Amino acid sequence: MLDQSGLEILDRDECLALLATAAVGRIVFTTRGLPAVEPVKFLCRRGALWFPARAQTDLFGAARDGVVAFEADEFDAVLETGWWVSVLGRADAATDCDLPSRLPDLSWGDLHGDLRCVRIPIEVVSGRRVTR
Amino acid sequence: MLDQSGLEILDRDECLALLATAAVGRIVFTTRGLPAVEPVKFLCRRGALWFPARAQTDLFGAARDGVVAFEADEFDAVLETGWWVSVLGRADAATDCDLPSRLPDLSWGDLHGDLRCVRIPIEVVSGRRVTR
Repeated sequence: MLDQSGLEILDRDECLALLATAAVGRIVFTTRGLPAVEPVKFLCRRGALWFPARAQTDLFGAARDGVVAFEADEFDAVLETGWWVSVLGRADAATDCDLPSRLPDLSWGDLHGDLRCVRIPIEVVSGRRVTR
Repeated sequence: MLDQSGLEILDRDECLALLATAAVGRIVFTTRGLPAVEPVKFLCRRGALWFPARAQTDLFGAARDGVVAFEADEFDAVLETGWWVSVLGRADAATDCDLPSRLPDLSWGDLHGDLRCVRIPIEVVSGRRVTR
């Protein structure tokens, strides 16, 4: 099925399969009433997205208990092909998280700060595929 | 200078230079009170970001007169290096736009819809570089 731009609409299963191939995504949140965005490394498992966030940051402040969007994509500039998937869900600071053992893989920069695990349940998901 | 995660903080000139190397970015906006994100192909010139948006879409509705964020990034998954830049600005539907002649390069999908040109003045810009 195509959207009004002629792009292929991906179904939920296709979106989840593509998310599983991505390592980096972007968290979209609101801070002080303004839109904000920050890339994260993430895992997709058990129907949710999981990523580390440092306590005391705007990202963690917004994601510990709020609706956030998430986006991952991949484009080939030469072939003009690609896909993107966006997710909307109420994030929370996960306590039953298996992320700690993976933190060295999932953190950019210093690991010594106060890192927390955030979970975004994949509630609403949508995606598009771009083909020539 | 490093941020609290130990990532290098990029200055405005470095951010603008990196934006000039990117072809795809993501527009972050609010629609029906919820965060939303959509990738776009864009140009960076005259102190602003320019991209096409289809009339009647949530993206154009939000970007024709509202504060939006924009993000572009590039990561090397193997080397664990990369950068990201985010911009915050009040978008408007540009009328003095030189985009029309570039639309075939800048549009994914069908060119026959009602495409408009949106401009985001680069008001607030921030960026980070990730190194091992």
